[in-house]
Amino acid sequence: MTIKIYELCGDNPERLFSPHCWKVRMAVAHKGLSWETIPTPFTKVATIEGGDSRRIPVIRDGDTVVEESYEIARYLEATYPDAPSLFKGDGGDALTALTINWSATQVHPEVVKLCLLDIYNSLAPVDQEFFRESREKMFGCTLEEFDAKHAKSGDGLAKVLLPLELTLKKQKFIGGESPLFADYVVFGALQWLRTSSTEDYLKADSAVANWFDVLLDMYDGMGRKGRVAA
Amino acid sequence: MTIKIYELCGDNPERLFSPHCWKVRMAVAHKGLSWETIPTPFTKVATIEGGDSRRIPVIRDGDTVVEESYEIARYLEATYPDAPSLFKGDGGDALTALTINWSATQVHPEVVKLCLLDIYNSLAPVDQEFFRESREKMFGCTLEEFDAKHAKSGDGLAKVLLPLELTLKKQKFIGGESPLFADYVVFGALQWLRTSSTEDYLKADSAVANWFDVLLDMYDGMGRKGRVAA
Repeated sequence: MTIKIYELCGDNPERLFSPHCWKVRMAVAHKGLSWETIPTPFTKVATIEGGDSRRIPVIRDGDTVVEESYEIARYLEATYPDAPSLFKGDGGDALTALTINWSATQVHPEVVKLCLLDIYNSLAPVDQEFFRESREKMFGCTLEEFDAKHAKSGDGLAKVLLPLELTLKKQKFIGGESPLFADYVVFGALQWLRTSSTEDYLKADSAVANWFDVLLDMYDGMGRKGRVAA
Repeated sequence: MTIKIYELCGDNPERLFSPHCWKVRMAVAHKGLSWETIPTPFTKVATIEGGDSRRIPVIRDGDTVVEESYEIARYLEATYPDAPSLFKGDGGDALTALTINWSATQVHPEVVKLCLLDIYNSLAPVDQEFFRESREKMFGCTLEEFDAKHAKSGDGLAKVLLPLELTLKKQKFIGGESPLFADYVVFGALQWLRTSSTEDYLKADSAVANWFDVLLDMYDGMGRKGRVAA
């Protein structure tokens, strides 16, 4: 059975940039399941699978529809217990929540500072309109003002990534010897940046950059596809 | 067999304030083991158990001496596998590293801003001398200058605790339904503040404050003892 993953896309349907969708795609690949991507622009998200206020990512697995990346990871773990684990135990499952909230409140804002306008530029006109309106309301300024406010050095990103940098100096993955869903959570945030921007913002030779490279190579280099053309 | 825990103390040997020692004491109690505290002032730490450059915490369990809180937790988990788990699986063990590094780089600096001078004031004269010299070198200014620089509102602490606040709105503990070592890691940081200061800096009725209260009550209210007198 092939799992359908509804993923946010740009004007080019091969431009898949959502951090949360990358978390899910890596999790599905980790489980060794077959899947297909249904590229979905911003303005089509709400009505996925007959919904009226859906949020991406959404998957359909046979008769089951699941929404939200952590929920999807837990669904996959419960449904495919014999495939490689995404949590390696109840402790790993529970501690993933703090990783998600750390990434969402610390890493995501730094990514947005670096590529908000790049994301906008990659969208189809109708989605640009939606994106501009919702984000300008969120940030209280125009996209261009927001972009101009933030230096594009990557120093802010390196600063928030310090706990991860220290961790990866002592172990290969957040999950230890091999990646777990917690790795894909932070990978998703950095892949959002990578697929939106032509710049490399991770500090060269940092433990985080090396770890990210390893994850990009996994599952037949799946993560290396879909970057915006330079 | 009673485990000896060497814990950092103030001028009053009942004033036990080290975040790392609290992590260990909670972990030993979690395992249901009997222990005794050996209060140890700063200037006696290096030579604990015949060492020449020890760092606190150190435990002796029979013939075994172990140093460093994460190492100690792993030692306890391996040595007492039938007692309640500190990690609930390999994933929980591995993900604890990111929690430790997040707490050390985000939470600890905010705690220090609130109580560096309080810690100094609680020490015996010979330890004050050691503390002043090492910390003034570390921060590049006098303890008094450092203290004057930082507002005592607790807003900075609340800001760095946001990922934990969001997590604890959805689950009882970082470890899920019951605490794991990762809970004690962050508890240690906040207990360091609580035992050093007479002020309550956690936002009243926050999820973090409520979780901290629950942890203070555990193991016969062990955490409630040893606070500096108001």
